[in-house]
Amino acid sequence: MSTTTDSPKGLLLKADPIASAFRDEVRSAISQSGRPCKLVGILSTSAAPSKFYAEFTQKQCLDLGVEFVLKKTGSALDSTLSDGEGVEEAIIEANEDDSVDGIMVYYPIFGVQQDHYLQQIVSPFKDVEGLHVKFHYNLYHNIRYLKPQSLLSPSIHKQEVPKIVEDQPPAGFVKSILPCTPLAIVKCLEHIGVYNKILPYGDKAYGKTVTVINRSEVVGRPLAALLANDGARVFSVDIDSIQEYTKRPRVTGDTAQSQRYHPRHVVHPSTLTLQECLSQSDVVVSAVPSANYKVKTEWLKDGCVCLNVAADKNFDKDVRDKASSASLYMPTIGKVTIMMLLRNLYVAVHVCYSNTLTSVFFH
Amino acid sequence: MSTTTDSPKGLLLKADPIASAFRDEVRSAISQSGRPCKLVGILSTSAAPSKFYAEFTQKQCLDLGVEFVLKKTGSALDSTLSDGEGVEEAIIEANEDDSVDGIMVYYPIFGVQQDHYLQQIVSPFKDVEGLHVKFHYNLYHNIRYLKPQSLLSPSIHKQEVPKIVEDQPPAGFVKSILPCTPLAIVKCLEHIGVYNKILPYGDKAYGKTVTVINRSEVVGRPLAALLANDGARVFSVDIDSIQEYTKRPRVTGDTAQSQRYHPRHVVHPSTLTLQECLSQSDVVVSAVPSANYKVKTEWLKDGCVCLNVAADKNFDKDVRDKASSASLYMPTIGKVTIMMLLRNLYVAVHVCYSNTLTSVFFH
Repeated sequence: MSTTTDSPKGLLLKADPIASAFRDEVRSAISQSGRPCKLVGILSTSAAPSKFYAEFTQKQCLDLGVEFVLKKTGSALDSTLSDGEGVEEAIIEANEDDSVDGIMVYYPIFGVQQDHYLQQIVSPFKDVEGLHVKFHYNLYHNIRYLKPQSLLSPSIHKQEVPKIVEDQPPAGFVKSILPCTPLAIVKCLEHIGVYNKILPYGDKAYGKTVTVINRSEVVGRPLAALLANDGARVFSVDIDSIQEYTKRPRVTGDTAQSQRYHPRHVVHPSTLTLQECLSQSDVVVSAVPSANYKVKTEWLKDGCVCLNVAADKNFDKDVRDKASSASLYMPTIGKVTIMMLLRNLYVAVHVCYSNTLTSVFFH
Repeated sequence: MSTTTDSPKGLLLKADPIASAFRDEVRSAISQSGRPCKLVGILSTSAAPSKFYAEFTQKQCLDLGVEFVLKKTGSALDSTLSDGEGVEEAIIEANEDDSVDGIMVYYPIFGVQQDHYLQQIVSPFKDVEGLHVKFHYNLYHNIRYLKPQSLLSPSIHKQEVPKIVEDQPPAGFVKSILPCTPLAIVKCLEHIGVYNKILPYGDKAYGKTVTVINRSEVVGRPLAALLANDGARVFSVDIDSIQEYTKRPRVTGDTAQSQRYHPRHVVHPSTLTLQECLSQSDVVVSAVPSANYKVKTEWLKDGCVCLNVAADKNFDKDVRDKASSASLYMPTIGKVTIMMLLRNLYVAVHVCYSNTLTSVFFH
């Protein structure tokens, strides 16, 4: 008779193989762009994870033939200066420098609210992190392609929205930049096979139930919206509420009906508990910025996929050890995230230079 | 012998007389503008305070000859809809409607982070609440006047900054819109006499120490920056830290030196406790969104001025009763805030129409 120790262990999936695939794509796209790309990284705190991430960005850029300039300000430059001092000036300088294609700022700096303010200072033409309100607006509204000239306006207007038929923008449009971390999570789920390749583009996550823990504007809410816009049923969990994101109409028993869907996700308050959400989730993504927060392993659905995207470990050590536990666990996705940033960089270069918008705007 | 009950009681100051003075100014400016002004209010929740505030706006507009259109969406329109449903669409519709001069959205809707996202969707040309990142940037950098065409750009660039000599923009410039609540607080402090009329413009709060409790991006941080940019020494207190905002260099004993100052405030971490900050503060402004939070009356400096700008009462009932307590207490400033909004409305009208930017941009 087998003991519990003989039960199959869930797979531990590292980010490297997924990052590698994208590295080749990025390398090829950059070498074909016909001009060097330049990324400016702005480091304005002495926090070790930010310093580490900046060094990692530099290494990746070197490897891929992207010029990387690290601009240090505040306590990153001089320990007598405070965190974030001079960061706005560094962003504006990079906004105005025609030789710069992309800007990356190492967060957190001041805290959630003030950092959100900073994110809006980065020019949308150089926002390779995808944190500008225009890109978030498009993401939430399932607007996948934009006309580059729409970025020239100071506010958001009604847009011509081309029908989503395939993963390529129609003539005159470019891809709307997606925020790096949510995009990296989607790419991991595609790699893992959570996205069904047989289903039509724009609905490949149909039939999957996903719980996303944390509803920040940087990770949780855009991720829940992205997945729901791709067809998944998503529970968005935060400290004060649980919401359901879905683009399916709320009808039951009518299969034909469930094939139809809204052009974008709709948000409903949910009466389920976290335990009930987890019990039916094929995928659990946790992004809680706390060392104390842990997802209860015994609440997970047998064989689910778990992704930790917090700096801390949100899953218990036994997440892939028990009979009822994750079939696959990714403890970190940072290496994929940086590839998404570099992917966004060449989209940004493409937006600016193939449309000669810089001559219209930056001068 | 007098008993403690005979000690003079601090003054209870209502917002009405201050609001009245501005009502006359706004009425006169609007009647001189030569065209009717139109404000759209967007109400998307069923929250009683928002509904009350919308009705109050309507009444004020009617009184002043401003056309007010209340647009209801979400649970404000239909109790089966959720809070905030359709609010983005309502904002964009108002952005695009040439007949609309100003847009006001009744917050809170979704919570701090998501509301901040919404605030960036409002066109800066119609942002009478002053919550757009461009206006916040100018406020933080003590840039009081802007060239209207700078609002046409999607990002923030280096600006020509005219010298501050008086409270009037030089030719070709208009006032940068200030957020309503912090501006209303400054106007109350001017009325009370905290601002010294004899001092030069731009430094009239010199010599005053102010504690601002709460450092949100909507009230606390912009207020602390405004006051420090006007010369005050400000303690910005939040749950996790105390900071000092000042434009004076940190030197002691040199009077000549203290007359010189940085072009804008600098932020330093403070080692003082809240009790120590309060003990030296001439003014205490509290904006903590909690019914349980109370400023300890016994910590206040004798004769200080206390302003409550939270929806809840942040000061104890005895705030003006004890010997060592406030000489003046304002329990609410909402009526002044709405006047600042209407004041911003005619600035917005002025920006758009005297510069015919609408023909450049909105068509």
